[in-house]
Amino acid sequence: MSIQQVLIAGQWCDADKSGTFRADNPMTKEALADEYPVSTWSDCERVLQAASEAAAELRSMTGEQIASFLEDFATRIEQHADELVEMAHVETALPKSPRLADVELPRTTNQLRLGAAAARNGSWAQATIDTEAGIRSCYGPIGPICVFGPNNFPFAFGSMSGGDFAAAIAAGNPVIAKANSSHPGTTRIFAKAAHEASLATDMPAATVQLLYRTGHADGERLVADHRTGATGYTGSRNAGLKLKQAADVVGKPIYLELSSTNPVVILPGALEERLDAIADDFSGSCLMGAGQFCTNPGIVVLIAGDETEKFIAAVAQRFEKAPVGTLLSKSVETNLQTNLSALRAAGAELVVGDSEGQGTGFCRANTLLRTSGETFLANAEALQTEAFGNASLFVVAAGIDQAARLLGQMEGNLTGCVYSHSGGKDDANYDLVAGPLRQRVGRLLNDKMPTGVAVSSAMNHGGPYPSTGHPGFTAVGMPASLIRFAMLQSYDNVRPARLPLLLRDKNLTDATWRLVDGQWTTADVDS
Amino acid sequence: MSIQQVLIAGQWCDADKSGTFRADNPMTKEALADEYPVSTWSDCERVLQAASEAAAELRSMTGEQIASFLEDFATRIEQHADELVEMAHVETALPKSPRLADVELPRTTNQLRLGAAAARNGSWAQATIDTEAGIRSCYGPIGPICVFGPNNFPFAFGSMSGGDFAAAIAAGNPVIAKANSSHPGTTRIFAKAAHEASLATDMPAATVQLLYRTGHADGERLVADHRTGATGYTGSRNAGLKLKQAADVVGKPIYLELSSTNPVVILPGALEERLDAIADDFSGSCLMGAGQFCTNPGIVVLIAGDETEKFIAAVAQRFEKAPVGTLLSKSVETNLQTNLSALRAAGAELVVGDSEGQGTGFCRANTLLRTSGETFLANAEALQTEAFGNASLFVVAAGIDQAARLLGQMEGNLTGCVYSHSGGKDDANYDLVAGPLRQRVGRLLNDKMPTGVAVSSAMNHGGPYPSTGHPGFTAVGMPASLIRFAMLQSYDNVRPARLPLLLRDKNLTDATWRLVDGQWTTADVDS
Repeated sequence: MSIQQVLIAGQWCDADKSGTFRADNPMTKEALADEYPVSTWSDCERVLQAASEAAAELRSMTGEQIASFLEDFATRIEQHADELVEMAHVETALPKSPRLADVELPRTTNQLRLGAAAARNGSWAQATIDTEAGIRSCYGPIGPICVFGPNNFPFAFGSMSGGDFAAAIAAGNPVIAKANSSHPGTTRIFAKAAHEASLATDMPAATVQLLYRTGHADGERLVADHRTGATGYTGSRNAGLKLKQAADVVGKPIYLELSSTNPVVILPGALEERLDAIADDFSGSCLMGAGQFCTNPGIVVLIAGDETEKFIAAVAQRFEKAPVGTLLSKSVETNLQTNLSALRAAGAELVVGDSEGQGTGFCRANTLLRTSGETFLANAEALQTEAFGNASLFVVAAGIDQAARLLGQMEGNLTGCVYSHSGGKDDANYDLVAGPLRQRVGRLLNDKMPTGVAVSSAMNHGGPYPSTGHPGFTAVGMPASLIRFAMLQSYDNVRPARLPLLLRDKNLTDATWRLVDGQWTTADVDS
Repeated sequence: MSIQQVLIAGQWCDADKSGTFRADNPMTKEALADEYPVSTWSDCERVLQAASEAAAELRSMTGEQIASFLEDFATRIEQHADELVEMAHVETALPKSPRLADVELPRTTNQLRLGAAAARNGSWAQATIDTEAGIRSCYGPIGPICVFGPNNFPFAFGSMSGGDFAAAIAAGNPVIAKANSSHPGTTRIFAKAAHEASLATDMPAATVQLLYRTGHADGERLVADHRTGATGYTGSRNAGLKLKQAADVVGKPIYLELSSTNPVVILPGALEERLDAIADDFSGSCLMGAGQFCTNPGIVVLIAGDETEKFIAAVAQRFEKAPVGTLLSKSVETNLQTNLSALRAAGAELVVGDSEGQGTGFCRANTLLRTSGETFLANAEALQTEAFGNASLFVVAAGIDQAARLLGQMEGNLTGCVYSHSGGKDDANYDLVAGPLRQRVGRLLNDKMPTGVAVSSAMNHGGPYPSTGHPGFTAVGMPASLIRFAMLQSYDNVRPARLPLLLRDKNLTDATWRLVDGQWTTADVDS
C-alpha cells in the first residue's frame, strides 16, 4: 500500500517523512490499512512559506470571495457525506447515525456557512470610526493559522473542517491543518474537498494545507515560526501546554481548549422536586458518546442527605444498565483507566464500574465515583483529574457552605451548572454557589447539562485556565470566534482610498455593523 | 525621615520591608529626601487577599457606582494638580508646563472620566443575546489587576492614575498598583486621592492598593497568583518578559507594552514636495520630551538620492540646534548610551550626537545615526535595538524594493508611518511599503508622526510582539481598552432574575448597546 500524500502549496505530494503511522479501528482494535507520513521540518518549511504567500494574497480579497469558498466547501462536504461518515465511523467508532450523519455533519456545514455569512457581512471585524480624530480601526487577518484538531469530533472540530478552520478562514487567513492521528483518513477527505473548493473559487493555492503528523519539536517550531499568525489547538493538556509554551515565548497567540471537569451543582430542592428526571439527564449527558465530550459533566457537587443518597443510587443503576460505548482509541482507554486510578488513590470511592468494559473494542465500564466535601478540600487538585470518558465523580458536601468553599477550589472550566428547585426553594443557596462558580467557568448553566454546545452568537466555549489559555475568547459561536484569528489594526490619518473597504465612508454591504462615533450603525459615514 | 507607608486593604500602614529606596531628581542627579519601602511577600499576600475580597464585592456593584468613584477621583486629582505637577517635575524632570500641567494631567482626568462613562453605559461589555437559543453573554470583571506603570508618563500611564488603572476599574476590578521607582512620590499623591475617593463613594476597602516596590521574584509571584485576574505592564522589555513568562505558565492574562522603534517611511515624492516641513515634523516628534515616548520615531526608512541627503542634513542641523532635554533617570541615560553603542557596533554610522549631553542633569546629545538598506538587511535584529531617548536611526535603502524588503524584516511595532506625495506621485510605492508595514504594526499612519496617541475609540496603542504580548488589544482608547481586564461569560438557560443587569430584557440604561439576535440595539429585548 502506498503512503498517503500531504497537501502543500496547492499540490498533493509525497511527504518528506521521518516515518509513517496507521490509525486503528477502535471497534476491532486493529490497525487500518492506510499509511500516513510523519513530516519532517522540510515539509513544515514549505507549508509555512506557501501559507505566508497565501496570507498576503488573501488580505486583498473580499469577504464575498472568502464566503464563496466556505459555501462551496460546505456543499462538497454534503456531496461526500456518505464517504465521510463511513470513514469517521471506522476511525473513531462514533455511531453513523444519528451522531455522525445527522448531528455532527450538519453542525459542521452549518458552521462553515455561518463563517461564510460572517466573512461576507464583515460585522465581526468591529470596524470603529472616530470621525473627529480621523482614526479608524478594525480587526484584520493575522496570518497563517495552525489548527490542531481533537480526537473526539472528527467533523465539527476537525482541523480541516471544524470551528477553528471556519473561523480562521472567515477572518481571512490560510490554514495549516495538522490531522488528528486517530482520524487521518477523515481529514484527508475533507482536505480533498477543501482543495477542490479552493480551485473552484479561485482562492490562493495554499489557502488550505494538510500535514498528517510532525515530531513534537517540529510542532512547537511551527506554532512559534515568525510566519505563523496564530494557532488553534484542541486536545490533551500536556501536548497543548508544550505548544503554548513555545508560542508564548515569541508572543504568538495560541488558543487552546485543554481539559475541563465541568462541575454540576445539584441543590437539594431540585432533587426533592425531580430526582429521576435529573438522574436521566445526567446519565444521558455523561454516557452519551462514551462521555468523550469537552463539556462532559465530570464532577457533580451534592449536599449530604437522604435524597442525595437516593440520587446516587439512581445514577448508579442507570450506569450499570446503560450500554458501554466504544472509546476513540487505545490511549483514551488507557488514560481513562489511569485517571480513574489516580482519582481513587486521591480518595474517591468506587460506586460502580472501573472494570473492563464488556463493550465493543476499546472500552471501560461506565464508572461512578464518590467522595466527601472534606476529602475533596483536602486533595482538591488530584480530585480534579479529568477522567475523559464515561465516568464522573460525585462530591458530597456536608452542607451548602462547604459546597461553596469547594467550588472556590475549582480549576478553570469550560462550564459550570446549577440545578435548583423551580419554585425558588433553593434561591438563597443558588447565590452562594453561583458566585464562586461564575468566575471559574466560561459558560454558566441552569437546570441543563453542559453537553450540547450551541453554535450561538452568545456561546462561550472557553473559560479560565487550564480549560483554555485565555478566558476572553470562545472557540464556538459565530462571529465571536473569529477575533481569535485577527489582530487589531488602526488607521490614523490614512487617506480614504487607502483604507480597507470595511473602513471607508460607504458601508461595504449596507448591512455591516460599525461603531461610528460611539454609535453602532449600518449607515454610511457622513464625513 | 520616616519611611513612607503602603496602602493595603484600605489602610495606610508600615510595609513589611526588605529594604528601602529613594528616587532621584534627574535635573540635579541627587537623591530626593523621601524614603520608600521594598515590600516582602507578606505585603503582597495581604494585598492579594484584600483585593480578592474587594473583587467579589465589586462584582455586585453597578456601573453607576464605579463611575462615581472614577469621577470623584478625577476631581480630586484636579484639586491636587499643583502638588502633582510639582512632585512629578522633581521626580521626572518633565516640564511643568505645558507637558505636565496642561497636557498630561488633563489627559489623565479625561481618561478617568471616559472610563466612568464606559462603566456607566455598559456598552463596553458587548452584551450579546440569542433569544432563540436562550444564551446570553458579556464581558465581566476578571479579578484583581496588577498594574506596573512606566517611567515616562507619571500621570497618564501611572499605575494609580493612568490608562490601565482607569480601564481595570471601569471594567469592575480592584487595582494593585506597583509604583514606578522613578516617581514614587507622584504615585503616592494619586493613591491618597484615590483612597479618599473610594471612601467618599463607598467603594470596597481594597479597590485601590499601593506597593512601591517588590523583589523581582515577588513581582513574578504576584502576577501568577491564583487570586490575580490579569496584569497590565508598561516598561522595559526585559522586566516585562520575565513577568510574561511567570503569568503565561499559569494562563493568567498579561498585557504588556514593551518596546517599539516605530518605523517611519518617507517616500521620495514627499521629500520633493515638503522636505523642510517633514524635517520639522520629525525633529519635533523625535526630540520632544527628550524622545522618551513609546511611539518615538526610532527608525526612518528613506530611498537613496539627493533629496534624502538634503533631508538628513536638514535633520542633523535641527538636532544640533535643538536644546538637549533632561532624561528621566540615570538608567535611561546609561541605556541610551549603551544602545547607541550597540547600534554603531552593528553598522550604524554617526551623523550627529552620541556625546555627553551638555544639558541639565541626566542627558545625552541629540543623536542621529544612519545606515544603508544593505547593512540593515544583513543585521536587522541588532539594528532594531531600541535607543529610548532623543535619538533615531535613518536607514537609506537603495530603492523601493529594498525598502519593502527591509520593512518585511521589522519586528512588531506599535506604529508605522508612511509619508508620501500629496498629489499621488508616490502611490505605486505606497502599496509596496504599506503592505509589509501593516502586518507589523498596531497603528498605521499617513503623513503624520506617531507621537501623540489620541484617546480615541478607534485608537490601537498595541501591536504584534515584541511591542506588546498580544496583537489583539489596545492599551489606550475607551472603551476598547477595558476588555483586556475582563473575561467572557456566557449564561445558558439561566433564569431571568439571576442574569446580570446588563443581560436582562430591560436595557439597563436605555443607552447600552447590545447585540440582540445579530443586530446592535439599545432597545429592550422583547422575549
